[in-house]
Amino acid sequence: MQVINDLLGYKNLKIYQDTDMFNFSLDSVLLPNFITINKNTQKILDIGTGNAPIPIILSTKTKASIIGVEIQKEVYELAQKSIEINNLENQIKIINADINTIEKDFQINSFDIITCNPPFFEISKNSNLNNNDYKTIARHEVKLNLNDICKIAKKLLKNDGVLGIVHRPERLADILIEMRTNNIEPKKIRFVHPRANENANIVLVEGILNGNKGIKIIPPLISHESNGDYTEEIQKYFKVE
Amino acid sequence: MQVINDLLGYKNLKIYQDTDMFNFSLDSVLLPNFITINKNTQKILDIGTGNAPIPIILSTKTKASIIGVEIQKEVYELAQKSIEINNLENQIKIINADINTIEKDFQINSFDIITCNPPFFEISKNSNLNNNDYKTIARHEVKLNLNDICKIAKKLLKNDGVLGIVHRPERLADILIEMRTNNIEPKKIRFVHPRANENANIVLVEGILNGNKGIKIIPPLISHESNGDYTEEIQKYFKVE
Repeated sequence: MQVINDLLGYKNLKIYQDTDMFNFSLDSVLLPNFITINKNTQKILDIGTGNAPIPIILSTKTKASIIGVEIQKEVYELAQKSIEINNLENQIKIINADINTIEKDFQINSFDIITCNPPFFEISKNSNLNNNDYKTIARHEVKLNLNDICKIAKKLLKNDGVLGIVHRPERLADILIEMRTNNIEPKKIRFVHPRANENANIVLVEGILNGNKGIKIIPPLISHESNGDYTEEIQKYFKVE
Repeated sequence: MQVINDLLGYKNLKIYQDTDMFNFSLDSVLLPNFITINKNTQKILDIGTGNAPIPIILSTKTKASIIGVEIQKEVYELAQKSIEINNLENQIKIINADINTIEKDFQINSFDIITCNPPFFEISKNSNLNNNDYKTIARHEVKLNLNDICKIAKKLLKNDGVLGIVHRPERLADILIEMRTNNIEPKKIRFVHPRANENANIVLVEGILNGNKGIKIIPPLISHESNGDYTEEIQKYFKVE
């Protein structure tokens, strides 16, 4: 069932969702609030954009032109409707394609920022998956893996351009290794813990193409109070600006 | 000047220090409190043991036999005196040698745990260092680097044995990459932040030889209250047990 939801109250932005597919999650809200954007940011690419929460939230923070690429036709259509209902067609363009097949169509070294909320789970020969299922494609690395993302970022980012990824902490070593293998130096990391005394369940990583070595671990983000409420910082992201 | 200090009150343990060289630091207290020790732990190696704070604190947690290796003669002598004043000669043996030249003397795959509080700083051709200076050897990778440590651990750890390192968060990518290159899978990480709203200044990493992939980021340790006092968790480490 398709529904229109408030995008966490962001300047009253709306987002189309299909409850049969998946809902956008906290991950998609955290990444655009983590990534380093500045006044010179002109072009942003969001890989695996889903129903476009990252481009839409980014539009509240920058005038840069934003391209979102989504492989799944039905999800792309939701993204397209979300862009239209928010009147963001001039800033955000959504493309229905496999980024691995169209990255050659983009100009090399042309993006200031690439963002990605990728599939989290590695697949193995033993993975028993339906590779055409919506959720499988969004969650498992059947169509897009960390190596693909970092290779594309190496090609498409400007020198000193920024790659921002939201992922699961379990994969931290994979993320840092794939980044460095592709000359993207990990520079800033933030861990999100559901509660102050619990293991992290989300990691935000920012790498810079041809950046100098040296990682900053910025203060942890605790998402929930002990009573289950969202913490003040998370609530801030939800408020109408 | 040589002085005898309380080892943070650990069961009234003492430690010899030389104020002209360097003092043992919070790092050396955090690592033995972070590393996974169990009842089957029989042999532990501490690489670059300094004046032996890690072996001495470990002795309060395990009956395992502990070997500390220290390259600098004068520092080794302090370690030796510290072991003697605490009557720990039966459990802890300190060796004055370069671990890179004596690792072949140990039995392959014989240690349950290897710990290391290594030199933190990478050196380059431009590093203008006195390679025989006490502090240079303790702080810069002139005699021991991350690659050395992980290679030695790969050789000397039992299968499923544990390598525990305390380091600076700036080097996180280097640590995880060197571990995985040597079949030591990073499994558990803790970041220490001086205050809740400040970047991490210490990282504790535990890897397992031939372990399965998957990292746990355990809850952050905040070392100081906003008024500058040590937090309760740090104070706990200082109390006489």
